[in-house]
Amino acid sequence: MNRLAVVLLSGGLDSTTVAAIARAQSWRILALTIDYNQRHRIELEHAARVAEALGAERHIVLPLDLTGFGGSALTADIDVPKGGVEPGIPVTYVPARNTIFLSVALGWAEAAGARDLFIGVNALDFSGYPDCRPEFIAAFEAMANTATKAGVEGEGFKVHTPLMTLDKAGIIAAAQAVNAPLDLTWSCYDPTPAGTPCGLCDSCRLRAKGFAEAGIADPAP
Amino acid sequence: MNRLAVVLLSGGLDSTTVAAIARAQSWRILALTIDYNQRHRIELEHAARVAEALGAERHIVLPLDLTGFGGSALTADIDVPKGGVEPGIPVTYVPARNTIFLSVALGWAEAAGARDLFIGVNALDFSGYPDCRPEFIAAFEAMANTATKAGVEGEGFKVHTPLMTLDKAGIIAAAQAVNAPLDLTWSCYDPTPAGTPCGLCDSCRLRAKGFAEAGIADPAP
Repeated sequence: MNRLAVVLLSGGLDSTTVAAIARAQSWRILALTIDYNQRHRIELEHAARVAEALGAERHIVLPLDLTGFGGSALTADIDVPKGGVEPGIPVTYVPARNTIFLSVALGWAEAAGARDLFIGVNALDFSGYPDCRPEFIAAFEAMANTATKAGVEGEGFKVHTPLMTLDKAGIIAAAQAVNAPLDLTWSCYDPTPAGTPCGLCDSCRLRAKGFAEAGIADPAP
Repeated sequence: MNRLAVVLLSGGLDSTTVAAIARAQSWRILALTIDYNQRHRIELEHAARVAEALGAERHIVLPLDLTGFGGSALTADIDVPKGGVEPGIPVTYVPARNTIFLSVALGWAEAAGARDLFIGVNALDFSGYPDCRPEFIAAFEAMANTATKAGVEGEGFKVHTPLMTLDKAGIIAAAQAVNAPLDLTWSCYDPTPAGTPCGLCDSCRLRAKGFAEAGIADPAP
């Protein structure tokens, strides 16, 4: 019998690849997308198309408006940097974002009887976010197993991070191996008024670099 | 200079006491209430009155609808038990609730430059929830300090749990010591159609027991 897993799905390249890996591993997918009133809200539509293409059993788009807190170029009125990927933690960092997203995923997982979470974090070709590192994932798992009825009663939660050690080209290679629908994905943090990717933000640059290194054309329109 | 702290405030007796303790310790209070579409939504109004009475600098009521996940008598269509407090984890347990609430509080804290969170968990006269124990709080702090820019850069987060080792009578004694506005609080999980406390759910029973043991009358109308 296939088991259930909650997959955090933003509609971007990484989370879509993770969801396709989960499908290839025969998990039954509960896809969770957080509508945090992000500047690039267009990714929500892409997430829905990806969830459908991958045959998710259920897709929840959970409104969770973090804009009232401020503190990030992705949710507040701060310009998204366009000059290239810089060292250090950038202003597009959303305070505690992956902690919040994984916590919500944990709540759904426990309620649904799932013990497995999937998230597309990556410690290599990432944007310098602390909550994308293996230390964070290990600490989250330890916390989850003291926090929950299922954890305390012995069935541990596991956070799967199949992209953790891959570079962007490796992610694209993995995506191709599991037929991830990369044509349906969206990456740009700061879409143009015409609704096209800006091509200049960190996320656009990392995507372009990945396809260039993998030696294939980006299938997204 | 007084420092900022994010205080999770449900509008109940415990969180109101915690907020009053934070005020007595000269913290500047950012009060955070989660509207998770709980059955006892009346507590949201009480939270607002408490935040005002305690002079919170800001009060955010964050909509975060967990009802789509199911799994708890507080959010799903399951009867709230009325027979008395039973051993074990009850059906009023909301999967990963305190994990989710603290994660959101962590996000606000980091964005606001606060490094301190207050939560009214209690490991003694509690309802058997795993996310009310000191092991959980310690694991959450460890996770928070790997998850965030502030944690990684060296300013650690602290989760304050001033009620952790108190019984309900002790909480009421502490509340009196700091002039907590207990008259404004709400505890009942399952209000009657007339909007009065049911008197029979675990939360009503624990509240009545606390006032009885403290030897004072409940000031709430």
